[in-house]
Amino acid sequence: MSLAESRPRPDGPVRGRPRSEAVERAILEGVMKLLEDGVPLAELSIERVARTAGVGKATIYRRWSGKEELFVDVIRAAEPPDPELPGTSMRDDLVVLLESLRQRGLLSRASVIMHNAYAQMKSSPKIWTAYHANVIRPRRELGREVLRRGQLNGELRADVDLDLANDMFVGPMLVRSVMRPDADLPEGLAEEIVDTVLQGLRPVSSTFS
Amino acid sequence: MSLAESRPRPDGPVRGRPRSEAVERAILEGVMKLLEDGVPLAELSIERVARTAGVGKATIYRRWSGKEELFVDVIRAAEPPDPELPGTSMRDDLVVLLESLRQRGLLSRASVIMHNAYAQMKSSPKIWTAYHANVIRPRRELGREVLRRGQLNGELRADVDLDLANDMFVGPMLVRSVMRPDADLPEGLAEEIVDTVLQGLRPVSSTFS
Repeated sequence: MSLAESRPRPDGPVRGRPRSEAVERAILEGVMKLLEDGVPLAELSIERVARTAGVGKATIYRRWSGKEELFVDVIRAAEPPDPELPGTSMRDDLVVLLESLRQRGLLSRASVIMHNAYAQMKSSPKIWTAYHANVIRPRRELGREVLRRGQLNGELRADVDLDLANDMFVGPMLVRSVMRPDADLPEGLAEEIVDTVLQGLRPVSSTFS
Repeated sequence: MSLAESRPRPDGPVRGRPRSEAVERAILEGVMKLLEDGVPLAELSIERVARTAGVGKATIYRRWSGKEELFVDVIRAAEPPDPELPGTSMRDDLVVLLESLRQRGLLSRASVIMHNAYAQMKSSPKIWTAYHANVIRPRRELGREVLRRGQLNGELRADVDLDLANDMFVGPMLVRSVMRPDADLPEGLAEEIVDTVLQGLRPVSSTFS
């Protein structure tokens, strides 16, 4: 599945007239406002969102099946959009994918609200499952697709498991952007990780030892 | 700092007579019991722990400065102990370090309580900070030390940043054990990651292209 095919999501809100889009935006902003005010996810009810956004509860339920789906859309709206891949080489595509993870990490550091939103999301199995299905799984599929093309054109070893290769490229960036809030996320990190994983960490002189 | 030097922790409970150890164990087990009963971290007070363990609040405060430190010790007691490094080579030491992360991942999958404990810990900045200082930081230091020795004996490229190298070995295992509960954690994964990161993912024929 390509990124393009993954949008619009089948379980996302159905987009209608401009009026409808404005309502949708008001609802998403309403949730964001509650998060900014420090309301914990557990206390964030559809009723409260409706009151904050100035709409009826039915208006929300017409668009989202529950607060989990609504919350995932709030996160998606706040995140940088998924990147366009240059398609010039596996290496270049991987750099763009890792760069978007770096940007997401920088956003989570710059915004206390987003940081808390991610943390709360991970402690709610239902929301995490929804986020995983709608955001993470398509992103992983895209990564696998890039690696598959790399195996076909000879940029990637043919004998390596694609899932493991994906974790080897993505893992170091995820560890830094998500798990180690104190870690450096310097410009050029995406290139450095991709090129170092391709080359390997063994000294060149002992490659054939 | 070596792993040995990191224990006993300066802010951990002071061990005394056997009687004292039994009390300590009763307290740690009391917290575990509350977690098993599904009590969320936010509702887990020292008073409630004292009641469950059948001790006075003062007995707990004599050993731990607060519920954050107590909770981190509960997690540590439930986790597999930090591994002994064979010291035969950087490669072997790294395999043992990654294998202990794999074991921790398997534990978190096998035990709903541990899984929830980790999730709740991450949503509490104070507890996460205590866990980071007492568990994660010493473990990272140990990894850096192993890599430093590898650079000295020629197993690791001399031009690579040690922090980045650490993330490259540890990242793929952490992604699988902590972030992707659906991912495979097969036996032999530690060896596979270490050897693949050392060798690199570029096909051998194009190493010098």
